[in-house]
Amino acid sequence: MKQETIDRIRRFTEDRDWDQFHTPANLAKSISIEANELLECFQWSDTDYDVAHVKEELADVLVYCRNLLDKLNLDEDEIVMDKMGRNETKYPVAKAKGNSNKYNNL
Amino acid sequence: MKQETIDRIRRFTEDRDWDQFHTPANLAKSISIEANELLECFQWSDTDYDVAHVKEELADVLVYCRNLLDKLNLDEDEIVMDKMGRNETKYPVAKAKGNSNKYNNL
Amino acid sequence: MKQETIDRIRRFTEDRDWDQFHTPANLAKSISIEANELLECFQWSDTDYDVAHVKEELADVLVYCRNLLDKLNLDEDEIVMDKMGRNETKYPVAKAKGNSNKYNNL
Amino acid sequence: MKQETIDRIRRFTEDRDWDQFHTPANLAKSISIEANELLECFQWSDTDYDVAHVKEELADVLVYCRNLLDKLNLDEDEIVMDKMGRNETKYPVAKAKGNSNKYNNL
Repeated sequence: MKQETIDRIRRFTEDRDWDQFHTPANLAKSISIEANELLECFQWSDTDYDVAHVKEELADVLVYCRNLLDKLNLDEDEIVMDKMGRNETKYPVAKAKGNSNKYNNL
Repeated sequence: MKQETIDRIRRFTEDRDWDQFHTPANLAKSISIEANELLECFQWSDTDYDVAHVKEELADVLVYCRNLLDKLNLDEDEIVMDKMGRNETKYPVAKAKGNSNKYNNL
Repeated sequence: MKQETIDRIRRFTEDRDWDQFHTPANLAKSISIEANELLECFQWSDTDYDVAHVKEELADVLVYCRNLLDKLNLDEDEIVMDKMGRNETKYPVAKAKGNSNKYNNL
Repeated sequence: MKQETIDRIRRFTEDRDWDQFHTPANLAKSISIEANELLECFQWSDTDYDVAHVKEELADVLVYCRNLLDKLNLDEDEIVMDKMGRNETKYPVAKAKGNSNKYNNL
């Protein structure tokens, strides 16, 4: 996310004095709630979805993720790089290739 | 997210030949599933949580969001900027300041 | 749900002194968390799922729903009958038949 | 749930010819979506919620759970009793009493 985008998200919260509602727990709930508005785009069909609607709901998920990163002073690249390292170990190419099973079932 | 981080996520999927499982609907389900593993960090307490665990689960949400952006050829900054524009209209500062009500209830 | 089943759920909570954790908000989080463990049974395929696993996760959702009914002193049949009345109005047969659109889009 | 309530749910689906949309995967998505509308009642506060709204959203979760039980020909009491048996083993009273930790962390 560009700095300009991050700044716009932060200003939105500040201007409304909403930081008081942004506890980590409330933001985790919010991410799940928005993730399910995104899921609703695919509720009755996996293939017949409205891209404009998907964009809006995915954006909402990303905004709350940014709020949580900010709240906990986390660096997005750092936590994702760390997790990708773990994922690479949990899902070795030799076993996971072309296989959607969970790591404990490879 | 830095290009290097994005590239690592893409390579992870390619190396495992997992693009076949990454339909938009499956990725939307995955975002919700990971959002709820994040929520589980706060299941019984809003204040007593394990930051290391939160980092991992938030990273998982962000990785699947990146997968969905890629799948639908979306630009993260573009969709977030568009949505922030709508949010700014839905929640005018004068009405929303210090108020956590939903826009249809301001 | 039979009285015997309800009693077993209640006794489980009492024996462990877990009522203190069962705030309505925590139970709502728990219902979502278990609903997503259920959803995980269908993460990568809509048709290739493990029924034994589905049964367990659906049971977990139902148990937390019962906990929330108890916590708020709600009667399951009463709230479902009330909601079905609303649903019947929102989705008139003439418009909704064979149509999966949301009520505001019929 | 009383037979009369179950029958009303079944008739609602039949009258609208909606059984075609009720695949197990779509119902699992629906349970998660409704669970998150329930969670939204507690998004910004754990204590200041609208009981009338909670009732409606909890009812929606229960209706989709009933749809899934029906779809897979499951007996609610049987799957809940089975799961409670497992829960009693996973969370022995001696270890779990007054403790909200997960079973793998008791």
